[in-house]
Amino acid sequence: MNNISFGSDNHSGVHPSVFAAMQAANIGYCPAYGDDSITMQTLKDIETLFGGDCEAWLVMTGTGANILSLQILMQSFNAVICATTSHINVDECGAVQKCTQARLSPIETPDGKLTPALIAPRLMGDRDQHHSQYKIISISQSTEYGTLYSLDELRALADFAHNHNMLLHIDGARLANAAVALGCSLKAMTKDIGADIVSFGGTKNGMMFGEAIISFRKDLTADMRFFRKQASQLFSKMRFISAQFQAYLQDNLWHSNAAHANAMAKLLRAKLADLPNVTVTQEVNVNAVFVILPPHMINPLQEKYLFYTWDEARNEVRLMCSFNTREEHINELIESIKQLS
Amino acid sequence: MNNISFGSDNHSGVHPSVFAAMQAANIGYCPAYGDDSITMQTLKDIETLFGGDCEAWLVMTGTGANILSLQILMQSFNAVICATTSHINVDECGAVQKCTQARLSPIETPDGKLTPALIAPRLMGDRDQHHSQYKIISISQSTEYGTLYSLDELRALADFAHNHNMLLHIDGARLANAAVALGCSLKAMTKDIGADIVSFGGTKNGMMFGEAIISFRKDLTADMRFFRKQASQLFSKMRFISAQFQAYLQDNLWHSNAAHANAMAKLLRAKLADLPNVTVTQEVNVNAVFVILPPHMINPLQEKYLFYTWDEARNEVRLMCSFNTREEHINELIESIKQLS
Amino acid sequence: MNNISFGSDNHSGVHPSVFAAMQAANIGYCPAYGDDSITMQTLKDIETLFGGDCEAWLVMTGTGANILSLQILMQSFNAVICATTSHINVDECGAVQKCTQARLSPIETPDGKLTPALIAPRLMGDRDQHHSQYKIISISQSTEYGTLYSLDELRALADFAHNHNMLLHIDGARLANAAVALGCSLKAMTKDIGADIVSFGGTKNGMMFGEAIISFRKDLTADMRFFRKQASQLFSKMRFISAQFQAYLQDNLWHSNAAHANAMAKLLRAKLADLPNVTVTQEVNVNAVFVILPPHMINPLQEKYLFYTWDEARNEVRLMCSFNTREEHINELIESIKQLS
Amino acid sequence: MNNISFGSDNHSGVHPSVFAAMQAANIGYCPAYGDDSITMQTLKDIETLFGGDCEAWLVMTGTGANILSLQILMQSFNAVICATTSHINVDECGAVQKCTQARLSPIETPDGKLTPALIAPRLMGDRDQHHSQYKIISISQSTEYGTLYSLDELRALADFAHNHNMLLHIDGARLANAAVALGCSLKAMTKDIGADIVSFGGTKNGMMFGEAIISFRKDLTADMRFFRKQASQLFSKMRFISAQFQAYLQDNLWHSNAAHANAMAKLLRAKLADLPNVTVTQEVNVNAVFVILPPHMINPLQEKYLFYTWDEARNEVRLMCSFNTREEHINELIESIKQLS
Repeated sequence: MNNISFGSDNHSGVHPSVFAAMQAANIGYCPAYGDDSITMQTLKDIETLFGGDCEAWLVMTGTGANILSLQILMQSFNAVICATTSHINVDECGAVQKCTQARLSPIETPDGKLTPALIAPRLMGDRDQHHSQYKIISISQSTEYGTLYSLDELRALADFAHNHNMLLHIDGARLANAAVALGCSLKAMTKDIGADIVSFGGTKNGMMFGEAIISFRKDLTADMRFFRKQASQLFSKMRFISAQFQAYLQDNLWHSNAAHANAMAKLLRAKLADLPNVTVTQEVNVNAVFVILPPHMINPLQEKYLFYTWDEARNEVRLMCSFNTREEHINELIESIKQLS
Repeated sequence: MNNISFGSDNHSGVHPSVFAAMQAANIGYCPAYGDDSITMQTLKDIETLFGGDCEAWLVMTGTGANILSLQILMQSFNAVICATTSHINVDECGAVQKCTQARLSPIETPDGKLTPALIAPRLMGDRDQHHSQYKIISISQSTEYGTLYSLDELRALADFAHNHNMLLHIDGARLANAAVALGCSLKAMTKDIGADIVSFGGTKNGMMFGEAIISFRKDLTADMRFFRKQASQLFSKMRFISAQFQAYLQDNLWHSNAAHANAMAKLLRAKLADLPNVTVTQEVNVNAVFVILPPHMINPLQEKYLFYTWDEARNEVRLMCSFNTREEHINELIESIKQLS
Repeated sequence: MNNISFGSDNHSGVHPSVFAAMQAANIGYCPAYGDDSITMQTLKDIETLFGGDCEAWLVMTGTGANILSLQILMQSFNAVICATTSHINVDECGAVQKCTQARLSPIETPDGKLTPALIAPRLMGDRDQHHSQYKIISISQSTEYGTLYSLDELRALADFAHNHNMLLHIDGARLANAAVALGCSLKAMTKDIGADIVSFGGTKNGMMFGEAIISFRKDLTADMRFFRKQASQLFSKMRFISAQFQAYLQDNLWHSNAAHANAMAKLLRAKLADLPNVTVTQEVNVNAVFVILPPHMINPLQEKYLFYTWDEARNEVRLMCSFNTREEHINELIESIKQLS
Repeated sequence: MNNISFGSDNHSGVHPSVFAAMQAANIGYCPAYGDDSITMQTLKDIETLFGGDCEAWLVMTGTGANILSLQILMQSFNAVICATTSHINVDECGAVQKCTQARLSPIETPDGKLTPALIAPRLMGDRDQHHSQYKIISISQSTEYGTLYSLDELRALADFAHNHNMLLHIDGARLANAAVALGCSLKAMTKDIGADIVSFGGTKNGMMFGEAIISFRKDLTADMRFFRKQASQLFSKMRFISAQFQAYLQDNLWHSNAAHANAMAKLLRAKLADLPNVTVTQEVNVNAVFVILPPHMINPLQEKYLFYTWDEARNEVRLMCSFNTREEHINELIESIKQLS
C-alpha cells in the first residue's frame, strides 16, 4: 500500500510466522508482566542461544534496551564511551542521559567503530573527583554505518575494557545481521568474546516489536526488573512479546531473515557498482548501503522510494534492506537511478 | 489454556477485531514512528472523540502515559497531589520520580478519591522556596478501588486546581469503564469538566497494548514528542498501535468492551451479595469488585482462579472483570466459593 | 543590628572562635578541594569523635548532607521511609527526588518520630517489581518538632531496618543538641546504636557553614567523593570549612554551644508555663519550643521578634534558641507576651 | 605555611577586605536564606553593575552557578553546545547531566573557543524527535585555556544563538580577569553583546566563596529560587556571601584583584620567553600561562611549587596567577627553572 522503502528496516511489517505466533498466544487468560509460561520458556531459550550462564529480559524498544543496559551497570557519576555516530549518542533524543543522569563521552571514528587506540587517550586522569569516571564502552554490532567488528576486534575491546575496570556493552539492534555476516553464533559474538551485556533486536528483523537484553554479569544485574518497570519498559501482556520471540527463534527465523536482508544489500551494492556517478562509501557487511548520489537525483528518487539522506553536505544517502526486501524492489530502484542519469 | 482469571483486566487477551486490524495493517512498507497515514488518521479520530481542539499522542504503556502527562506539565521542583492508593504512587516502581525528579504528595482517602477538602490543607505555604510547588492534581477515573468521580466532582476538582494555579491530570487506564458507568461521552468527562491532560487506555480493555494521551492545553504540551522519545515510549512500527485504536474506535468497541466488563462485575457483586460471610467493601461502579473473604477460602480459590489479595490484614481481595469475562466464569467462581463455605 | 530572632538557629551569626579559626587559616597558598593538611586532620578528628572505623566527608549545607547520604545508599527504584514532617520531605524543595530520582514514603507521626510499629505496615509486598523497594529509614535526631529519640528507640529502629534489609540514616543537623539532651557521646548515639550513615551539623550551632557526613558502612560509600562533586557540594577552598570544624571540636565547642541553646529553650518553656492562655505543644528536649499563642498576639510579636508560625490552623508557632540566645532576649519576649495578654 | 602555588587561583586565600566584611556582618541575628538587608542591597548592586534590567542570585560554587544557569533555560530533551575543554564538560564530574538530564554536545577547538563556523554543522536535522534539541551555547570567558573572546566574537555567538532559537550562557568564573583584559565593563561583555545568562565568579578572585548568576532573560528565569534550593545551592547564612560581594564590589576590588593576577601572568610569560627549551603554548590574555617544559624539570619543580600538568603527552603544564601572586614568587620559580636547565 506504501512506496517501496529503503528507509529503515523498521519500515517493513511483521513476518507471517511472527504474526501467527501472536495469534496462537491469544487464547484466554494469562498472567501479565512475564509470569506466564510462554515468557518463562522464551527467556530460557534465549539464554541457551547465548551460551547459558546469563540472564535475559524482554523489553519493548531498542532505546529501552540500551538505557536499561547502561543504567544497570553504572552510577550517575560514570561515563560511557561511544562513537559519535552511535544510536545512543544521536538518535535517542538524550534518553541515556535522561535515564542515567550520566555522561556520554563520544569519540569520532571513520567508520562507526571504536578501537582501544581511539579510547586510550580518554582514560587519563581517572579517579580524580572532578571527572566523570569511565565505566562502560558501548558499541553497536553491526554499527550504524553498516560496518562490522570482527571477533578479534570485539575481544580486544572487551579485554581493554576489563583491563581498565570498565565493562563492554553491545547494542545489538542488528545483532542477527552481524552474526550472519561473520558466520558465527550469537554466543561466539557475545559471551565468548567477553561482552558483559548485550541486546538482541527483533524489531528491525521481522518482529512487530521486542528486544532482549542479555547479561553475562548476573552478579551486577540482579535489580534489572525494578529498573525495567521504572523506565516504563515492562510490557503488561508479555506473552505477546514472548510469542514473537518463540517464532523468531523457531527454525532460526532470526538468521534467515537477516541473511536475506544482508544478501539484498550485497545485491544492491553490486548493482550500484555498475552505475556511473555513484559511490558506495562504506563496506557493505550487513543490510545497509551508504552511497553518494548525484544531487539532482535525490529528490526525484525520494518521491518514489523512502530513504534518508545521511550526510547532506556530501549527498550521501542510506539504503536499508530488510527481511522483506525483494529483488524486484532493488531492480526498480536501479532502473529509476539509470533513468535519472 | 490458563486458569480463569479475575486477577487483572490485562490478563485477558486481545479482542478479535483488534487482532484483525493489526493483521490488515501488515501490508508492505510503511514509514515508522508515526509518519504513516493510519497514525495520522487515528490521532485525528481520537481528537474528535475527545471534542476537538486538543492534541493526541500514542504511547505503549499506561505508566508511559502517566509519566509523560506529568512530565510535560511541570518542573522538578513541582509536586503532584495524588491519592496514596493511586497507580502512580504505588504501582509504577517510582517511574514518575525517575522521569520527572519531582515529588508526589500522596493523600489518604477512604475510597481512592480526592476532593478539594482533602487537598486544601496541603496548599499552605506555597511560593516558599523551601517547598516543592504544587502544580498538578492527578486522579484516576475510574480509581484503583473501582470507584468513580461524578461529573460534578470532576468539575469541582478541575476548578479547584485552576483556582490554585494547578492543572488536572486524569489517569484514564479505565476511562472507558468510567464513561460507561457515568453514561456520558469521553468528551463530557474530560474536556467539558476542564481536565488539562488525560490518558485513554486501550491495554486493559481489549487491545494488545497502546494508550493515548490527550492534551487540552496545547499551549503547554508542544514538546511532547521529544519527551516521548526520550522516555523510550516512541513505538517504531507505530501503524500497529494505530490499527488497534482504529478497531477500538470502530463501532465504539471501547464502549461495548467496557460495558461488558462492567456488567460482569455488577453480576458478580449481585451473586456475592447472596452469599453469607462475604462482604463487598467498595461500591461496584465499573469492573472491579473488592470483597472480604473468609480467610480459609483464599488459598484454595487461588489455586483455581487468578486474583490478588489487596489487603492481607483484612482478607480483602480484588476481583477484576474484563471484556472477555463470561457469565459461566462468574458462575464457576461463585460455585467454588459456595463449596468452600 | 536586627531584631531578636527566635526564627531559626541559623539566624544567629558565627561563634567568635569559629571566626578566629577561619582567620588563622587564611595564610598563603593551600591546595583546594580537601587536599590540604587542615582538612586531612579534621576528617580524622571527626572520625575519632564518632568512634573510628568510619569515614567522614565535609559538605556545605544540610540539604547537601542529606541528599548525598541517601544517594550513596540506594538506587532510583528504592524508597526512603521518613516522617511527613521531616526536613527532607517538606523543607528541601524536593532535593532528594531531584538528586536520587527515588521515592520518599512519608509516614504521619504525632511527634515527628518514626517507630517500627508505624513502619511495618509499609513493608508488605516487597520485592514486587511494581513497587519501589524500601531501602532506607531516615530520621532526624533531634526531630523537626524538637523531640528526641532515646538510645533504645534508636537501636530499635536500626535493628528493625537491618532485619528488613534496610539501612538507617540520621539527619543530624541538630545532632549536637540531641547529644547534650541525652547526655551521651556522639558515638553512643550513632555508631553504637547501629546507624549506617549520619550527618553532623555545624551551621545551626555556631559555624558559618559546614556539615559532616559520617558513614559507618565504608563498604557501601566508597564513591562518595564523586557524588559530592556531581551534586556541586565540593567546596573549593576547603580549608575554611575544616578550620571551622577545628574550632567546633576544640574544647567541645559543639557541646557547649548546644548546651546553651538547649538551656535557653528550657528556660523559655519554664517562663511560658507561667503564662495564661499559652500552651506548649511538644516536649522541650532540645532548642525548640512549640507553643500555641492567642491569635491576636502573633502579628504584634512578629513585628518585634523573628519567628515562624508552624501551624496556622491552630496558631502554633515555633520559637528556636541558639548558641547566642541570651537570657535577656527571653525575658524581653516574655515581657512582650505579658503586655499583649 | 604552604608552598608557593601556581596550581589554581583557588589555592589563594581570602583578600583581607573580604574577610573584614564578613567579620563586620557577624553582628547579632539576621534572617536567613537571603531575606536580609545586606543581600537585598548586594543583589541590587550586582544588577546595576551588569547594566540593570536583569536579575541576580547568589550561589556557593562555580559548578552550582553553571548547572543552575543551564537548568533554568532548558528541558531534559535539549542539548548544550560547549567546547570539549570546557569546565562543564570535563571538570564537574557530570554535574550538568546529573542536574538537567540533558545532553552536552562538546566540540573540539584549538584554543577553547567556540565559533559559529564550528557550531553550524551540529545544527542540521533539528526538530526531529529522535534528536536532542540544541538550546544553549555555553562558553567560558575567559576560557579554560586562558584565551579570550573579543566583544565582536561574543556578539557573533549571541547573534548566531538567537538566530537559531538558542540562548547564550557565559561561564564567568574568571569574568573579572576577562573584563580587565578587554578593558571593558562587565556590562559591555555580557548584557551589551546579547548574553542571556552569565555567572560572575568571586571564589577564584579573592573571595572565600560565592558566585552570582545574572539573567538578562527575566521572562525565562522566574523559577530560579526553586531550582537553587532543589540543587542544594541555597546558602542559609546568606549575609556572609553578600558581605563578601559588598567588599568585592567596593572600590572595584574585583577589578584590581584581577588586574594584578593578569599582570603577574604577563610578567611570568615575559620571563619564560627569555628561557631556552621552554615554549608558551597559548596566548596569555588573563591569569593563566600554558607552557611546555623539558620533561626532567617537572617533578623537581612540583616538589617546590604547586602546579598541574595539563597535557602529559606533550609535557604541557598550567601556571596560574592570582590576586596574591607576588613578583618574588615568579622570580623564585624562574630561578628554579634556570637551575634545572
